[in-house]
Amino acid sequence: MKLRIGYGFDVHRLADGHSLFIGGVKVPSEFGAVGHSDADVLLHAVCDALLGALSLRDIGYHFSDTDPAFKGIDSKILLERVFSMIKEKGYAVNNIDTTVVLEKPKLSSYIPEMQKVISTLLEVSEDCVSVKATTHETVDSFGEKRAIKAYACCLLIKK
Amino acid sequence: MKLRIGYGFDVHRLADGHSLFIGGVKVPSEFGAVGHSDADVLLHAVCDALLGALSLRDIGYHFSDTDPAFKGIDSKILLERVFSMIKEKGYAVNNIDTTVVLEKPKLSSYIPEMQKVISTLLEVSEDCVSVKATTHETVDSFGEKRAIKAYACCLLIKK
Amino acid sequence: MKLRIGYGFDVHRLADGHSLFIGGVKVPSEFGAVGHSDADVLLHAVCDALLGALSLRDIGYHFSDTDPAFKGIDSKILLERVFSMIKEKGYAVNNIDTTVVLEKPKLSSYIPEMQKVISTLLEVSEDCVSVKATTHETVDSFGEKRAIKAYACCLLIKK
Repeated sequence: MKLRIGYGFDVHRLADGHSLFIGGVKVPSEFGAVGHSDADVLLHAVCDALLGALSLRDIGYHFSDTDPAFKGIDSKILLERVFSMIKEKGYAVNNIDTTVVLEKPKLSSYIPEMQKVISTLLEVSEDCVSVKATTHETVDSFGEKRAIKAYACCLLIKK
Repeated sequence: MKLRIGYGFDVHRLADGHSLFIGGVKVPSEFGAVGHSDADVLLHAVCDALLGALSLRDIGYHFSDTDPAFKGIDSKILLERVFSMIKEKGYAVNNIDTTVVLEKPKLSSYIPEMQKVISTLLEVSEDCVSVKATTHETVDSFGEKRAIKAYACCLLIKK
Repeated sequence: MKLRIGYGFDVHRLADGHSLFIGGVKVPSEFGAVGHSDADVLLHAVCDALLGALSLRDIGYHFSDTDPAFKGIDSKILLERVFSMIKEKGYAVNNIDTTVVLEKPKLSSYIPEMQKVISTLLEVSEDCVSVKATTHETVDSFGEKRAIKAYACCLLIKK
């Protein structure tokens, strides 16, 4: 059995006049996330965890944030492309555990849908994809509602 | 061999007039951690890593911070409950590695006791539980002694 | 097959008049990293991930930042010593995935050299060492170019 561990981290600023996409789900929110793509912090962290597990560089390497081709792009498309690279190498997802750090809104009711979106994209059962949420207890940019971050930790297995 | 990876992250603010519990150990300190429970940042990160590994949602989902039942509760009780869920699913802890980020006091002399508390709760030998400590080099809320954070990364194995 | 998971996190302040060593590579930069050793945030995170995987305490425990023996020391020497401890326990690196968080300069062109340095030190092929880079989107000390941080996540395997 060949295994690989991967880890992803991503940050986006929050601001008025933007949508808030997290895990492929549009979350109703006073503030949205700022980015070149749709700024889905969770899908970006997942992309980086998958790429890192197989030493395939990072999301910025594959999808430059100055390339007009990726302007406003749905990050589900980016994750599909990343997962294609993983499959080409002969690997599947064993499981992935993620954490979104955001002061508000509460994400609890949106998490099952996020798990469904991600597990579908990664061709794995829903119970192999975990999405957790926590606040930053009012401190720093995340606690002051100026930014959102996500962590993803994955285990890949050679098919 | 069935394996699962889990990852937990937690933050608490620090303030006068609170105790500082870390890894089930009361650490003498000028400032304590603020929270609905005993605010043990390390045990909370461990709970979330275990829950996340088996896609069992997160600590806020199981133990709401507005539920009076958990007011001031010893986080060792929360970890016991989480570990029961893990055992019910047929899993054991292979190993867990954690990091506490705190400007002061130095935690080095308390770490062996934390490892003992956590390994006893998780029914595993002490050398399968790692607690590391580092500072935040004076920057941001963690470096300015206004907050404490912890990371936990675990590998579970099907019995 | 015996496996162990490890996780490391490190922070250094940035300031004028210091060199910027990342992953054993000197990166041309307006600001350098401040520390007792050469302040290589990536190699320190890797050291902590390896130590944590085998519950061997942390980098601050083994290499005190008040010990004159480590003043200005090349962190590659620290990683060599840590890896010796890992080998003594009979373990090898399965793979390691790391993330450096820095606002500027862009690290992309230096990453292959960092992977080469780390894989050589850890006696593993280059495709088992991943180095990713991201910014902190202008927020907090990392986004304001006052600090740099790194995460490392490893899987060790018993030989």
